[in-house]
Amino acid sequence: SDNIVLISKAFRQQFVIPEFVQFTCKIEETFRLCSENKDGKVASYIPQLAHMNPNYWGVSFCTVDGQRFSIGDDNIPFTMQSASKVLTYVIAHSELGAERIHSYIGQEPSGRMFNELVLNHNRKPHNPMINAGAILTASLLQNLVRPEMRHCDKFQWITRYFKRLAGGMPIGFNNAVFMSEIEDADRNFALAYYMKDNHCFPEGTNMESCLDLYFQCCSMEVTTETMSVIAATLANGGVCPISGEQVLQSESVRDALSIMHSCGMYDYSGQFAFQVGLPAKSGVSGVIMCVVPNTLGICCFSPPLDKYGNSVRGVQFCKALVDYFNFHRYDNLKHAEDKTDP
Amino acid sequence: SDNIVLISKAFRQQFVIPEFVQFTCKIEETFRLCSENKDGKVASYIPQLAHMNPNYWGVSFCTVDGQRFSIGDDNIPFTMQSASKVLTYVIAHSELGAERIHSYIGQEPSGRMFNELVLNHNRKPHNPMINAGAILTASLLQNLVRPEMRHCDKFQWITRYFKRLAGGMPIGFNNAVFMSEIEDADRNFALAYYMKDNHCFPEGTNMESCLDLYFQCCSMEVTTETMSVIAATLANGGVCPISGEQVLQSESVRDALSIMHSCGMYDYSGQFAFQVGLPAKSGVSGVIMCVVPNTLGICCFSPPLDKYGNSVRGVQFCKALVDYFNFHRYDNLKHAEDKTDP
Amino acid sequence: SDNIVLISKAFRQQFVIPEFVQFTCKIEETFRLCSENKDGKVASYIPQLAHMNPNYWGVSFCTVDGQRFSIGDDNIPFTMQSASKVLTYVIAHSELGAERIHSYIGQEPSGRMFNELVLNHNRKPHNPMINAGAILTASLLQNLVRPEMRHCDKFQWITRYFKRLAGGMPIGFNNAVFMSEIEDADRNFALAYYMKDNHCFPEGTNMESCLDLYFQCCSMEVTTETMSVIAATLANGGVCPISGEQVLQSESVRDALSIMHSCGMYDYSGQFAFQVGLPAKSGVSGVIMCVVPNTLGICCFSPPLDKYGNSVRGVQFCKALVDYFNFHRYDNLKHAEDKTDP
Amino acid sequence: SDNIVLISKAFRQQFVIPEFVQFTCKIEETFRLCSENKDGKVASYIPQLAHMNPNYWGVSFCTVDGQRFSIGDDNIPFTMQSASKVLTYVIAHSELGAERIHSYIGQEPSGRMFNELVLNHNRKPHNPMINAGAILTASLLQNLVRPEMRHCDKFQWITRYFKRLAGGMPIGFNNAVFMSEIEDADRNFALAYYMKDNHCFPEGTNMESCLDLYFQCCSMEVTTETMSVIAATLANGGVCPISGEQVLQSESVRDALSIMHSCGMYDYSGQFAFQVGLPAKSGVSGVIMCVVPNTLGICCFSPPLDKYGNSVRGVQFCKALVDYFNFHRYDNLKHAEDKTDP
Repeated sequence: SDNIVLISKAFRQQFVIPEFVQFTCKIEETFRLCSENKDGKVASYIPQLAHMNPNYWGVSFCTVDGQRFSIGDDNIPFTMQSASKVLTYVIAHSELGAERIHSYIGQEPSGRMFNELVLNHNRKPHNPMINAGAILTASLLQNLVRPEMRHCDKFQWITRYFKRLAGGMPIGFNNAVFMSEIEDADRNFALAYYMKDNHCFPEGTNMESCLDLYFQCCSMEVTTETMSVIAATLANGGVCPISGEQVLQSESVRDALSIMHSCGMYDYSGQFAFQVGLPAKSGVSGVIMCVVPNTLGICCFSPPLDKYGNSVRGVQFCKALVDYFNFHRYDNLKHAEDKTDP
Repeated sequence: SDNIVLISKAFRQQFVIPEFVQFTCKIEETFRLCSENKDGKVASYIPQLAHMNPNYWGVSFCTVDGQRFSIGDDNIPFTMQSASKVLTYVIAHSELGAERIHSYIGQEPSGRMFNELVLNHNRKPHNPMINAGAILTASLLQNLVRPEMRHCDKFQWITRYFKRLAGGMPIGFNNAVFMSEIEDADRNFALAYYMKDNHCFPEGTNMESCLDLYFQCCSMEVTTETMSVIAATLANGGVCPISGEQVLQSESVRDALSIMHSCGMYDYSGQFAFQVGLPAKSGVSGVIMCVVPNTLGICCFSPPLDKYGNSVRGVQFCKALVDYFNFHRYDNLKHAEDKTDP
Repeated sequence: SDNIVLISKAFRQQFVIPEFVQFTCKIEETFRLCSENKDGKVASYIPQLAHMNPNYWGVSFCTVDGQRFSIGDDNIPFTMQSASKVLTYVIAHSELGAERIHSYIGQEPSGRMFNELVLNHNRKPHNPMINAGAILTASLLQNLVRPEMRHCDKFQWITRYFKRLAGGMPIGFNNAVFMSEIEDADRNFALAYYMKDNHCFPEGTNMESCLDLYFQCCSMEVTTETMSVIAATLANGGVCPISGEQVLQSESVRDALSIMHSCGMYDYSGQFAFQVGLPAKSGVSGVIMCVVPNTLGICCFSPPLDKYGNSVRGVQFCKALVDYFNFHRYDNLKHAEDKTDP
Repeated sequence: SDNIVLISKAFRQQFVIPEFVQFTCKIEETFRLCSENKDGKVASYIPQLAHMNPNYWGVSFCTVDGQRFSIGDDNIPFTMQSASKVLTYVIAHSELGAERIHSYIGQEPSGRMFNELVLNHNRKPHNPMINAGAILTASLLQNLVRPEMRHCDKFQWITRYFKRLAGGMPIGFNNAVFMSEIEDADRNFALAYYMKDNHCFPEGTNMESCLDLYFQCCSMEVTTETMSVIAATLANGGVCPISGEQVLQSESVRDALSIMHSCGMYDYSGQFAFQVGLPAKSGVSGVIMCVVPNTLGICCFSPPLDKYGNSVRGVQFCKALVDYFNFHRYDNLKHAEDKTDP
């Protein structure tokens, strides 16, 4: 019954990628190419990440029609880490509206060489993709969205939201990662105290439970399959292609994609926007969630990271994809004749 | 004969904006709304700009099919100023290729609060939309593209390029502006000497003639009509919709649009990317050239500028357009139901 | 018996300021002039400071011979605040040596416009006069100097040190200020967590008790009389002029004076060094401790502060003093004939 | 007749360094120690400096009584380079007064990590020891001090001033260095244009001739003997110890020493102030001029430079001197018993 959208379309033969089989052949070829790349280092700041198998390599696709395709390690669970920042932002945005959320958080890149400057010139975090911004987003979810909920209920409520974005697919929770993160949280405590001193938080914020929520979201566990459906929901304006449910406001999705485009890949964001031209968000577990608006969602997973903290194979895969298909944000649909329209 | 593309399409009724008349009605309404806005100040650093009539207000559209529509002061000539930076970049890119041009110039925003830092950490100008980058682009055009040409011939050659981008429409030259700019060039001389000291220029660069060429391009004179056709050529992957000529490499256009998206509106670029989500480039004469990829090119012209140096009415017009139509780069085509697809 | 140094010198008529009475007349005149200055605002971030009487105005002198002179509110107790940073630094330096302490903390100004940058390029606090540096100094006193002491004993030990610097004069403790500071400590918690994340602290640091010690030192209570003796001990190479005891290593005093000279007056340090040319340290309670090396120690106290956080009357007094007497570090002793050598 | 000051004092046996012979023995020992140091690289940006013999090593002293002592290569001519910045500043200060000169130029360190920021937040050069500040000082000398003088006469006038500071000793001019500097002046042209754009210069400034004057001062040629007398004039409040002439206002000398103290050794200034604690100024020719106020002037010369651009042996010599004698700005005169008072 989940796939009712897909089936009804199949009958009508109206898929966004008409030649899906040919498309997947090219994906497989690219996947194999990237699997030879042994560069990068697995994140090591907590043991749970350090012990990840560096050979894991999986890619999943989900189109806005609900067509899906996976290859490699598509059912190995990994924690979302920073990829969760997109979800908490888009949920808070959907619940509170653009104006309200952006009275607390900016929407621009922080400038790659000045990462010491925690707040922008308005004394707000630069954007919701950096730690300061995501911690503040957690506080907004806790104190401005249904503030009467107990903390445990709020956690449940967010987990359910994540699940709806994934069309009902399971979302796990890695408690060992959560506990490790909390123990290694000096930097994030520094950010939180600094923001508190600058009156960044909404009234009533309990900093400890706000950081707890932040780390809980980072410790949500998914597979590439699940994550590709979430990405497809974003590609589809907030309507999950599996369930057909409008989970998010389309305006919220638009703003989330804009911010992923300019700020989603750490200090590599500017170059990624130029070369790949797709909204994406990476996490130190080795995940990259990438969105081709109106078309499909992609999730890559491979633990070894480059110096920016992005999955080496994930970045390579996204580049190869855009070199072959006309997915770049500013690819011309008619006159870029050497590229393939899937 | 120029309109052969348009006519052939008209017969086939395959326009990108099927209901063009309804579309233009909405444009007119927005135009009138903006004309009431009396904010902003005309640029005053040279007399030729200071004496511009602040009431001038014109908008022109050109679709990738070659359909055109203008309203207001659409035939008042104005100088391109910084809008020419896009053209010199895309021409140099088309002639030299991405790799070669970006071995001299970066492709990322410079960070809004640190405009004193002339060069990025690789000792290159941050991007071709800032003065340092555009001066360097002029030097590349002079010394790497057909270096045997005399300076006067190179100027002719570039003018002809501009004209081809405009489908043969006339491109003027305002010599009074050029001479004023040269006289008020201290800042740009400082940038050029600083870059020379950092070995930014290709060998053989004559700094005086390079700055001359830079200011000459800024002093090119156009109308909103002409400029909208140039914008449409960019919307159309480098193929001029009026003449049907492939003037630029589609890859070059893609990179130009990426850079316009992140760096085209001075220090307002980040907010413009978030709110409007369209590649655009402004100039202190009051021009804004805006591109809806695969759809149309827009040119607004109104001399009063906001504190960032962007035309007040121009920015307002672009925002209103995106509020009504699904032109924002990350508007969802299906599920943003309150928006109109023209 | 405390004054044995003084008395023995008096017999020999060998005072550093031979005409002490004439000198004090000029001081009185300057004191009255400054008392008319009603500018500045009392610090308001904690109630105990906010409620200070803005009319308090006292100045005390103590020469290296132990001659003393006070005028105005010389026995109103106030908290040392940042002036304590000099004492903890010079004690830690005296106990640990220059090399050891400066392997943890730098010794240069942080640059006035970049106060967001908590650590210098070696990932250390810039100097012991900024909060980060003083928090770290507290940790060195706790963990490297007699680490076996219990926290309460270490506090006693430091208090006794302060008292010895003051020649046995009483040192109080304002517990209300301490408790207020602890409650308003977000900024300092942020700094401490940030330093912890950067491995700035010596092993075994308990951050809570280290911040406690930092705030305890800030909450030590003195009068201008007491503080002028401490300043005189610094003027006298670490030998208290009242008791004759060598309390500090002379090398430690030298380094403390160097750092007070370049970093002691918050963001006004550079201008103060240029105009007044004397090592000084201010605190938000309105205290300024100023040292004329080899000559005398001065303490001014007046709660209203300028925009830099320095006592308005205190700064005015120091400037007037240097305009009249040849106390500026680079005053020429022979050829600055319009100045008085007291 | 020049030595009349010296002779009259000799009769009265009132020298500032009573045991001059013992003092010079220690100097010789230190000199030999430093001569073993082969570190550093000779400046290479112009051929005239690059060809300097790296083995040159000379030191000269001159006390405020006019006693002199030299060792090593004390009569090899070298260009003043940045050491001339002190002289042009102190002359301009003496002629124009503190208020007037500092309405154009600041007086604080620029902050070592932010050397790209040419101007401070008041849009002035940070201080007269950096290139921007020294170029501006040249302009003040040209346009505010006797502006009616022709450029050649102004050059003569300044040369004579330098000569008076040196008690009549000869000052040469190295025209080859001057011409090389002018040819390699891109950076300084950038600074000058940038300042022009920011309206830093006084009215009537001709930038070319101002840069000429700046480079001419840098190309003045001296020996360590000559330079040590100039340093002694600064140590003596502006009165030349050789001629007895009051060449400079004592207030001007005070301000020059303050600025040398905080800004005289390029990016090493902060550490030098802490460790050596004496006002000094270095130049890329390998010169260091160092002042012990009220006592003596020192000039070291050795071409190999460290990474900051300061003479390796010169810095080593200054440190050794302060380790042995109580010359550090904040050495205690009584209680630093392990140090020698010469």
